Amino acid sequence: MSDDDLRQEGGTSRRDFLRTAGLAAGGAVVGAAAGAQEADPLITEVQEWASATGEGVDATPYGMPIRFESDVVRRTVSWLTADPISSINFTPIHALDGTITPQGCAFERHHSGAIELSKDNYRLMITGLVDRPLVFTFDDLMRFPRENHVYFCECAANSGMEWAGAQLNGAQFTHGMIHNMEYSGVPLRILLEEAGVKPEGQWIFVEGADASSNGRSIPMEKAMDDVLVAFTANGEALRKEHGYPVRLVVPGWEGNMWVKWLRRIGVTHSAVEAREETSKYTDLMPDGRARKWTWAMDAKSVITSPSPQMPIRHGAGPLVLTGLAWSGRGAIERVDVSLDGGVNWQTARLAAPAQKFALTRFYLDIEWDGRPMLLQSRAIDETGYVQPTKHQLRAIRGLNSVYHNNGIQTWAVYENGAVENVELDA
Amino acid sequence: MSDDDLRQEGGTSRRDFLRTAGLAAGGAVVGAAAGAQEADPLITEVQEWASATGEGVDATPYGMPIRFESDVVRRTVSWLTADPISSINFTPIHALDGTITPQGCAFERHHSGAIELSKDNYRLMITGLVDRPLVFTFDDLMRFPRENHVYFCECAANSGMEWAGAQLNGAQFTHGMIHNMEYSGVPLRILLEEAGVKPEGQWIFVEGADASSNGRSIPMEKAMDDVLVAFTANGEALRKEHGYPVRLVVPGWEGNMWVKWLRRIGVTHSAVEAREETSKYTDLMPDGRARKWTWAMDAKSVITSPSPQMPIRHGAGPLVLTGLAWSGRGAIERVDVSLDGGVNWQTARLAAPAQKFALTRFYLDIEWDGRPMLLQSRAIDETGYVQPTKHQLRAIRGLNSVYHNNGIQTWAVYENGAVENVELDA
Repeated sequence: MSDDDLRQEGGTSRRDFLRTAGLAAGGAVVGAAAGAQEADPLITEVQEWASATGEGVDATPYGMPIRFESDVVRRTVSWLTADPISSINFTPIHALDGTITPQGCAFERHHSGAIELSKDNYRLMITGLVDRPLVFTFDDLMRFPRENHVYFCECAANSGMEWAGAQLNGAQFTHGMIHNMEYSGVPLRILLEEAGVKPEGQWIFVEGADASSNGRSIPMEKAMDDVLVAFTANGEALRKEHGYPVRLVVPGWEGNMWVKWLRRIGVTHSAVEAREETSKYTDLMPDGRARKWTWAMDAKSVITSPSPQMPIRHGAGPLVLTGLAWSGRGAIERVDVSLDGGVNWQTARLAAPAQKFALTRFYLDIEWDGRPMLLQSRAIDETGYVQPTKHQLRAIRGLNSVYHNNGIQTWAVYENGAVENVELDA
Repeated sequence: MSDDDLRQEGGTSRRDFLRTAGLAAGGAVVGAAAGAQEADPLITEVQEWASATGEGVDATPYGMPIRFESDVVRRTVSWLTADPISSINFTPIHALDGTITPQGCAFERHHSGAIELSKDNYRLMITGLVDRPLVFTFDDLMRFPRENHVYFCECAANSGMEWAGAQLNGAQFTHGMIHNMEYSGVPLRILLEEAGVKPEGQWIFVEGADASSNGRSIPMEKAMDDVLVAFTANGEALRKEHGYPVRLVVPGWEGNMWVKWLRRIGVTHSAVEAREETSKYTDLMPDGRARKWTWAMDAKSVITSPSPQMPIRHGAGPLVLTGLAWSGRGAIERVDVSLDGGVNWQTARLAAPAQKFALTRFYLDIEWDGRPMLLQSRAIDETGYVQPTKHQLRAIRGLNSVYHNNGIQTWAVYENGAVENVELDA
């Protein structure tokens, strides 16, 4: 089709297009955004059709994001921990759509830094209360039947800074200790059956090869259910920072149990009550007692856009609200969205039928009147559990804990489109 | 759990583990792989539990694969095209598991190179036989309702070199012009309705902003059905080489129609019959006539491991056969696998319920007797279509075409575990 053809059909020629594109355009929706465009420091006017060739297919054997997306990265909070080797970074959930988290920007949590371990030098031991203690090479693991599943992995401390009202300004920081990937791996059940669990073996204790070893106890019922010994995420090998070459995947349960650089699985009679399940990863209640074995992540949701890092760049009119919902107790059943801080609720549209233990994307398409809003989302899972408010949570759990805060998040949207993390009075 | 605890439970201590791990271990499966291990030039013995800290969470704001996986990249075939700016590279499907293709190693096909286009300078025009010609900015597109879908994108020329029996030695090269990603985007239908398609508008002609513009005609029925104007893949922005910031997604249809750097959509009365749908992307038959409008990709499958780049590194015994199946006409219904070149067939296990127009991972877990095999896979889709042999295809279509070769692939497996691309006589 030539420019002349288009002109004959009543369209606009390439030349006309380039002349008019800088001006306000004709559609109802189109005009609104014109004033909100931020100037790109690198390119200052609407780009012509390319008149020269671009980059060849041999340029990037392994591709990276385009330079314009250089702000869509994992970020750290400098004051959060004493040292980055025992710390966490945050997935840029505000800037993502869909449900899959690319490995490159999926959050990391290490207790003693990400170690480098090769497949050839990898070994996994199953020992303790078993008929035959076993040591598996990586190649051995590749000979057992595999499964594929998309699962979310959420750190127990996700949103933990919100307990005491830190009100970090961005969904990345308030809710970004989460990722959602398609794993391939061998069901742990198969490997345990290979070793032969003795009747008195009621728990397993799993450890990584890193210096912290991050030992955690898991009841045998879960170990024999849906736990995976995983070696790929989103199709390709796990990244070093996610436990290459092998990590544990513990669907629906807190991320700390998803042991990376998986090294040893001890079958035990009872729980070990190790550091990571006593002094850490228990929830300190107002009376000084600690809730323990709070493994499953309760239903939770957050609006990712608009959000503090994703202000509204256009005026009133059509606005897409979108976010993520998940539950460690089953599939998401429904997500409600409020524009007025929880007084009125509308049912959001789920982008696809919800899958158990996986992130669910929701959308609500509204006509924004240009006035301030108090945005909230509320997840309901298939058990009937309804995501509580922060006030409801605090009334029972107090302010001592840093774990398992699944309270409803509120974003204040102002007339100029700016968005802020706020706390409601009640 | 200390080493002493483990020893008391009848297990093996950390010290014992490290002493025995270099030797053959106890399990039935475990011993087999020992002789097949390739020495890693960088690390020469089984790695100790880490005694020092690793890399901190601030080390890689955007992560990359670990250095040990540096061979899992897109690759080119030097003799295939005159210049890499109008060429293709291949997804390393042999080394991936699951179904999602990471953007970083998803194949690229350009006709005039990958161009750089910013969101701020992006415009999409809808013109031709419409009530209101429209120009959309990127921000405008973000105000329309979005959908999420996982779809495969296969180049019409995938396996094309096999027509005349090139027999490239690797699934990456024979079947790697494919990727499978989760897209977010606006249904094209919504944008066309915004412009108002006139009754005489029966086709669209879509063009990219690159120098080739890669114009293709699409019938209005498809345009109004499931075509997406997409801006993310696997959650994050499209990569430059996949059409950043906006590409067309045409589910089930040949990749050439998935126009990148999407610039203009002309609504027309009839098909344009442009270069990319006449001299290219038509299938030249033995009698010199060309099949045209062969848009849908027929049912197809390939065993990704073992395959020439993924030889069997262990001896006889448990062996996981795995591969991918897909169809542009509906969901995959079943995949059969043959070990003897198509004489006998077994039904493979699908890793998850098959989704329409998305890759389906299949597995067959066998006990390999250590003798040579002729591996084949055969996909059957929900329309009842059965993937044909190459001989069946050639009997009808001859050898002239480079497009739409969905014939059954054969891998010869030898006693030493090596795998080769072979052609069967009949």
